[in-house]
Amino acid sequence: MKICQVEGTLVATARIPGLLNRRLLVVKERGSSAKQVAVDPVGCKPGDWVIAVGSSAARDAAGSKDFPSDLTIVGIIDYWDDPAGRAAQKVVANAD
Amino acid sequence: MKICQVEGTLVATARIPGLLNRRLLVVKERGSSAKQVAVDPVGCKPGDWVIAVGSSAARDAAGSKDFPSDLTIVGIIDYWDDPAGRAAQKVVANAD
Amino acid sequence: MKICQVEGTLVATARIPGLLNRRLLVVKERGSSAKQVAVDPVGCKPGDWVIAVGSSAARDAAGSKDFPSDLTIVGIIDYWDDPAGRAAQKVVANAD
Amino acid sequence: MKICQVEGTLVATARIPGLLNRRLLVVKERGSSAKQVAVDPVGCKPGDWVIAVGSSAARDAAGSKDFPSDLTIVGIIDYWDDPAGRAAQKVVANAD
Amino acid sequence: MKICQVEGTLVATARIPGLLNRRLLVVKERGSSAKQVAVDPVGCKPGDWVIAVGSSAARDAAGSKDFPSDLTIVGIIDYWDDPAGRAAQKVVANAD
Repeated sequence: MKICQVEGTLVATARIPGLLNRRLLVVKERGSSAKQVAVDPVGCKPGDWVIAVGSSAARDAAGSKDFPSDLTIVGIIDYWDDPAGRAAQKVVANAD
Repeated sequence: MKICQVEGTLVATARIPGLLNRRLLVVKERGSSAKQVAVDPVGCKPGDWVIAVGSSAARDAAGSKDFPSDLTIVGIIDYWDDPAGRAAQKVVANAD
Repeated sequence: MKICQVEGTLVATARIPGLLNRRLLVVKERGSSAKQVAVDPVGCKPGDWVIAVGSSAARDAAGSKDFPSDLTIVGIIDYWDDPAGRAAQKVVANAD
Repeated sequence: MKICQVEGTLVATARIPGLLNRRLLVVKERGSSAKQVAVDPVGCKPGDWVIAVGSSAARDAAGSKDFPSDLTIVGIIDYWDDPAGRAAQKVVANAD
Repeated sequence: MKICQVEGTLVATARIPGLLNRRLLVVKERGSSAKQVAVDPVGCKPGDWVIAVGSSAARDAAGSKDFPSDLTIVGIIDYWDDPAGRAAQKVVANAD
């Protein structure tokens, strides 16, 4: 799964019916400047660091095997431990 | 999902029967110079900024689990909000 | 779908039975120097610009849900129109 | 499958129910600085070099066709042999 | 499908049961320095140039829809013809 940061809400009025009225967020992958669009079933706010799943798993994660998503947020990151020598990384944004 | 801009209509007379007569568009991913071909079930015009879904979701989005697409347009972007400090980005083309 | 140019026919005698005797072509993606191998159910010749589909769609496009392909040619490109300001691009090879 | 090194455990309290309480690890692909999140059904510790599977196979590898993973650890690497001229590479970390 | 060269056999004793005792090879994609791990149902030896399939097709190619592979070798390359102007490329390693 990718580590992404939420940038903001995306508005797309003209859409295929299958997208329903799901919330779409613009996210930026950690260490990259490219932005993508993810479905948000978790309830994130801008600035949150999240885990986003791709591939066919993005569909089930969005709630249904038929949902047309290839990137879905599955969790909000609290922190991760890095016992491999460097200081514990409690804030994802500062980690490298 | 990827953020892409529509470039134009692609004509391919010799094609596998499974592609039917679906409309194929040349699109360029935001922040990249690479062009790809996407199926358009929404009805876009050149210059539109769109959301395009890949992976197996592109098939359902194109109308059928059996449709041979790996990139399908699922919506036309109106705008997105970026409350993370910078000015609201109302025009995708100017966003960075 | 990717925009690729056909380079030539690939010969691989030792292969898994599932590949059958399908025609395999070496193709180069537009704007890249990397070569890949694609299944050709259309009947292309070297130099042709083609549309190639990846992901699970490559399997159906090759003729069966069980066919072991992740890149299958689905059409030969005639041309595409670019009304976005530049001259119409009638020859893919010259397009940029 | 990708060759990755385990960095540490990731904590994400707010998550979709489908993720269950599976162990999530931050991993770094060999030869890249990008970090990803993988599901760990094997029981790895930080510093381990592992094989991680992506695509739809990541789901079965995590224990169920419905599990929302696109990267799952499937084994811990002991070593690999390289008879192609260079010295045998017994330690992955030193291999290049 | 990708064009890869076999580097050597990978040993991973601690693995998920689903991997069975299948032979795992370290392969390097042509034109790249990144190494990946592929399942080998063909019987390759180090130095061989092979075709490797990814995506969900890697699973069927490995022998079962449930096998947890995202990269499986499907054939050993003999040579390919390049009638597009340059000399015929009979040896993959010398091709460019």
